[in-house]
Amino acid sequence: MMNSFGHIFRVTTWGESHGPALGATVDGVPPGVPLDEAAIQHWLDRRKPGQNKYTTQRREPDAVRILSGVYEGRTTGTPVQLMIENTDQRSKDYSEIAEKFRPGHADITYWQKYGIRDPRGGGRSSARETAARVAAGGIARAALGELAPGIEIRGYMTRMGTEAIDRARFDWDEIERNPFWVPDATAAGTWADYLDGLRKSGSSVGAEIEVVVRGAPAGLGAPIYAKLDTDLAAAMMSINAVKGVEIGEGMNAARLTGEENADEIDMGDDGTPVFSSNHAGGILGGISSGQDIVCRFAVKPTSSILTPRRTITKAGEPAEIVTKGRHDPCVGIRAVPVGEAMAACVILDHLMLHRAQVGEGPRGTIGR
Amino acid sequence: MMNSFGHIFRVTTWGESHGPALGATVDGVPPGVPLDEAAIQHWLDRRKPGQNKYTTQRREPDAVRILSGVYEGRTTGTPVQLMIENTDQRSKDYSEIAEKFRPGHADITYWQKYGIRDPRGGGRSSARETAARVAAGGIARAALGELAPGIEIRGYMTRMGTEAIDRARFDWDEIERNPFWVPDATAAGTWADYLDGLRKSGSSVGAEIEVVVRGAPAGLGAPIYAKLDTDLAAAMMSINAVKGVEIGEGMNAARLTGEENADEIDMGDDGTPVFSSNHAGGILGGISSGQDIVCRFAVKPTSSILTPRRTITKAGEPAEIVTKGRHDPCVGIRAVPVGEAMAACVILDHLMLHRAQVGEGPRGTIGR
Amino acid sequence: MMNSFGHIFRVTTWGESHGPALGATVDGVPPGVPLDEAAIQHWLDRRKPGQNKYTTQRREPDAVRILSGVYEGRTTGTPVQLMIENTDQRSKDYSEIAEKFRPGHADITYWQKYGIRDPRGGGRSSARETAARVAAGGIARAALGELAPGIEIRGYMTRMGTEAIDRARFDWDEIERNPFWVPDATAAGTWADYLDGLRKSGSSVGAEIEVVVRGAPAGLGAPIYAKLDTDLAAAMMSINAVKGVEIGEGMNAARLTGEENADEIDMGDDGTPVFSSNHAGGILGGISSGQDIVCRFAVKPTSSILTPRRTITKAGEPAEIVTKGRHDPCVGIRAVPVGEAMAACVILDHLMLHRAQVGEGPRGTIGR
Amino acid sequence: MMNSFGHIFRVTTWGESHGPALGATVDGVPPGVPLDEAAIQHWLDRRKPGQNKYTTQRREPDAVRILSGVYEGRTTGTPVQLMIENTDQRSKDYSEIAEKFRPGHADITYWQKYGIRDPRGGGRSSARETAARVAAGGIARAALGELAPGIEIRGYMTRMGTEAIDRARFDWDEIERNPFWVPDATAAGTWADYLDGLRKSGSSVGAEIEVVVRGAPAGLGAPIYAKLDTDLAAAMMSINAVKGVEIGEGMNAARLTGEENADEIDMGDDGTPVFSSNHAGGILGGISSGQDIVCRFAVKPTSSILTPRRTITKAGEPAEIVTKGRHDPCVGIRAVPVGEAMAACVILDHLMLHRAQVGEGPRGTIGR
Repeated sequence: MMNSFGHIFRVTTWGESHGPALGATVDGVPPGVPLDEAAIQHWLDRRKPGQNKYTTQRREPDAVRILSGVYEGRTTGTPVQLMIENTDQRSKDYSEIAEKFRPGHADITYWQKYGIRDPRGGGRSSARETAARVAAGGIARAALGELAPGIEIRGYMTRMGTEAIDRARFDWDEIERNPFWVPDATAAGTWADYLDGLRKSGSSVGAEIEVVVRGAPAGLGAPIYAKLDTDLAAAMMSINAVKGVEIGEGMNAARLTGEENADEIDMGDDGTPVFSSNHAGGILGGISSGQDIVCRFAVKPTSSILTPRRTITKAGEPAEIVTKGRHDPCVGIRAVPVGEAMAACVILDHLMLHRAQVGEGPRGTIGR
Repeated sequence: MMNSFGHIFRVTTWGESHGPALGATVDGVPPGVPLDEAAIQHWLDRRKPGQNKYTTQRREPDAVRILSGVYEGRTTGTPVQLMIENTDQRSKDYSEIAEKFRPGHADITYWQKYGIRDPRGGGRSSARETAARVAAGGIARAALGELAPGIEIRGYMTRMGTEAIDRARFDWDEIERNPFWVPDATAAGTWADYLDGLRKSGSSVGAEIEVVVRGAPAGLGAPIYAKLDTDLAAAMMSINAVKGVEIGEGMNAARLTGEENADEIDMGDDGTPVFSSNHAGGILGGISSGQDIVCRFAVKPTSSILTPRRTITKAGEPAEIVTKGRHDPCVGIRAVPVGEAMAACVILDHLMLHRAQVGEGPRGTIGR
Repeated sequence: MMNSFGHIFRVTTWGESHGPALGATVDGVPPGVPLDEAAIQHWLDRRKPGQNKYTTQRREPDAVRILSGVYEGRTTGTPVQLMIENTDQRSKDYSEIAEKFRPGHADITYWQKYGIRDPRGGGRSSARETAARVAAGGIARAALGELAPGIEIRGYMTRMGTEAIDRARFDWDEIERNPFWVPDATAAGTWADYLDGLRKSGSSVGAEIEVVVRGAPAGLGAPIYAKLDTDLAAAMMSINAVKGVEIGEGMNAARLTGEENADEIDMGDDGTPVFSSNHAGGILGGISSGQDIVCRFAVKPTSSILTPRRTITKAGEPAEIVTKGRHDPCVGIRAVPVGEAMAACVILDHLMLHRAQVGEGPRGTIGR
Repeated sequence: MMNSFGHIFRVTTWGESHGPALGATVDGVPPGVPLDEAAIQHWLDRRKPGQNKYTTQRREPDAVRILSGVYEGRTTGTPVQLMIENTDQRSKDYSEIAEKFRPGHADITYWQKYGIRDPRGGGRSSARETAARVAAGGIARAALGELAPGIEIRGYMTRMGTEAIDRARFDWDEIERNPFWVPDATAAGTWADYLDGLRKSGSSVGAEIEVVVRGAPAGLGAPIYAKLDTDLAAAMMSINAVKGVEIGEGMNAARLTGEENADEIDMGDDGTPVFSSNHAGGILGGISSGQDIVCRFAVKPTSSILTPRRTITKAGEPAEIVTKGRHDPCVGIRAVPVGEAMAACVILDHLMLHRAQVGEGPRGTIGR
């Protein structure tokens, strides 16, 4: 169960950065969902490296193949196996990083835990694993399209290092227009210069990503330990380099009074509840309220930088390391589609879990 | 699986705030661990309400009973059933909150999901459920005492509303000396006045809690979806009112450069790796490094306040609600022992998962 | 997960034969199901010991209490905790069986595994644990009554030692009329004499039980490893003293040709498929076909007999043991309600799992 | 979780009979185990079709590829992905079986459940899926070779239709010498003639297979619902066409008295317990005793026969069907390596689960 997530829509990812292939085994897919490779490829292409100067220059086509679970363009209810071949595994020399532990990477902990590790490109701990998540997210999106057509899942960057968006300028349409998926046209320009400077100096920077789920029904989430926020937190924290996860107000909730944090409830014109604000991020007691579900996470700066860092070798000798190679100055950029994919998987899983226990749709009605 | 957590050391909590009892069914307990009710009561008493004027005046003895799994003072390897009877269920009138949804509470979402809810004291969504977690954590602590004796797990508050600790004054010994478990004697005084003011005005405030695990071996955590940080994030986010979880730098990682965030590695005098800093919070690639494991979470302010709030009734009519009753102005205070308990459960679970797959202790050696 | 079964309707049993209590923690219960203690007690009373001379003379009222998950007579969707107190724990001397391993019992294996065991009445390995299963089965029956009202689950004995039923005399109404739950009035008489003889000589005998589920919809069972027959086999084999499980033809399938084993398919007058026979036991490819689901299992003879048996002590010394005490000459009799309860849990669980993945009811239609 | 088995050593199989490929995603593999494709191929070749006239003439090389989890010839602790390409998917016409339900096959139930099915070669319900199990079993065997070197797992046929082995002639060495894996040289000859006759007449026959695990330590199995016999029963019942599972005496236990069924215990010369007989099949209370673990299962006759059978079409019209094509007259033959593979997976999984909870080896000692 170590490489799987989800209760019913259950995704197991497999594969290393420089092995023959990587992929996802996706179990519990609803039957009859229209699905083909192009539909999944669409989402993978958003994450694909080498698309602009801000992401790694590793050039992988990242072409996904469906090996099972689909017949004549529709899912059959049996496991869908997704495979992405690794084609650009440069035959470079890995002997240095096989001996030295790169600070900030999982080299030292994989070694300590297992007594063996695949040093090529970080092996299993490489961010390349997230391609499998995005592919699985493509299945989740296709299934959501059938089970709950109105749901929209959007991710975007809200901060990169010292630069943050101005929410007064928030523009959904801007997200797809810039390489940072930032919903703020002014920021998009500033960030380009900022990141260019970091890239040229061989430095790197962290990022904050927000994922919003709009149109999800009330009632998703199963207290106490399969709460919707619990599962979102786990999903996001499991992404490489993520160090913090927030729902709604997030860490800032610690600073507020009860008056400031209250989301008052009114009855909307359409006969459903309307909230005066969304400090809760759309989740109360672990269950969705019908408001936008708002999740945020922080990605640490890429640990691979040109400044030499002190480390040790497997033999325990002191050493210095400079990580050359094809790295993203802000790995957080490519975390946007990954966060969206994880949210899609969690929402679908909870829709399925809800109908297992309760049936179709929310059960309690408000008003007549 | 909705009310259970843990892979092998598996805790299922049950019970409502005003039902006859609540408790935890704890499966996967290692055999031969010395355990009695007093050992668990010790931890429960730290969380017990009504101990000072800052926590709810509900007076529950919270006396735990062990109903199974222990024979002649030692665990047998079979499930341990822990039961805490609810004795102070004041026979008050719940008809108002049975009809009106309290803003910020799970009233509306439980209703929407299930079409039925126990309104007495919040039912299953009450913070009272956390007593079962603390009791289960007592078993985890006892087992850790046998399996990995050097591990120490400590929680404390780092922020309450506008007030934060000064890390320059950090003092481990201070934690047990004040009602806030704050590791800063000066803050302890200031906070008392601050909270007293909030309490008298019928307001409430959020809090930030930090839990540190010292002495855990390297190698805990099973990538990719049973990472140690993933499971800690899920454990903490599942606690009532928690809105954010951080490991090490947490959300602040988004602001840093690679140079600022790097934890360089040296060889210590005792032949184990030493890190120059701990931005990582003791976890790299989801696996513990042997450094202190640092986890932080934010608890929102208690939603029950004296200021009237706008809401609706089950019938969809507009209404106003004032939550009287016995409530904590800062529910985050009592979240400290809960966070510790969750950490204890996660660490024990991962020790067991590690020895399942790898065997006793870390496998890779550094040096010689 | 060691003491739990079920995918979504998840039952965890806990407790020892002579501890303060035993019970079941039942998670994933659908909300809104009418449930009270009497409804569960009804099923428990069928299993209760001491009702006639053929079952153990231990006199337990086996009164069940519901501690959570029910509000105003209906389930709330939160875990239901069931507790049965052990009241007739005779303060007898267990020092002999604490030292000597009773042949055929789990004494030696529990000792070897855990290095500690509760010898009082067999501890956790006592058949008394099955009371918790029957109680949980009562919840499953109540939920089935709401989700799929037409389902009927009936168990009965088909063999006791050398005596077998004559299927030509099969009579559903007879089952409730005799202490053996045997659907054959003639056999009921013969068996009484046969068992009386065994009982008086201090011997014991095995039994074969059949459980039939009528009226279950087609489509239950999730290939490949959550097949309906897989889960039934696991459920029945987990019952104390069970050594074999069969679906439909069972072990006899090894003796047949393809022609003999074929269940041909016709279209029934009501527009649903009708099968010419039921060698398959209602399950094809792990999925229910709409035919009766037929499951059979064998219970070994009670190991506690008056004839002295050779054994060893914990110290490895040779010894002889005679098991006195209150034992059933045919423990298989009381396995009938246990088998029914397990079937009820499995069927409900699969109904829920089916609606998670596929939705309400079978999806493919036959005919217009 | 529908296509996965195992608690910690967790196998998920995927793929259809006539899709591009099938395989197994194997999680929880211990690190450092020597493994390459040849080691797995060895076991797959035993199951390979087309090796003699008694098994299907479909000619698949069944060449397995390892796509992840192995580095420089040793497992890394990350998931091992095994893929077997389907190369002999004859482009035959599946339009008839796409419309008509073959009696005894899963055609009708897959249709009813999912409303869609892949008719080519039975899709997911084809016995071809068992290749993935055998491959996964190869990993389990390799890991057992490291963790518990003395364990031997052997399967063989004990019955084919009217023909059964004579246990007086039991010969371990004979198993590998005949196409039936029958441990009785005389039977091997008789069975060849018998099956030849059935094959020529287009008929088929059932089989009984026994799997024995020798040298497993005492203490494997985790009561109550992860009992070793429970998990073996589930594993065997999940194999295609299996209708019954037995441990030790199996269904025959229903016929015995307590005296007949008793396995008395002596102290062996080597200081470990010795049993006078093995009615228990090596498992007491769900935990291994150190004796041989004996598991038996029955496979029904291949449903595809030349005799026309009555059935219906998807439209509900009456029809007749004759299954031509490449089928095994006794599919039970190829179930022998499958049963061995499942046993290997279960034993490894329980070794790992045991060391998670208890540590290395049994805990309780007998003697001194």
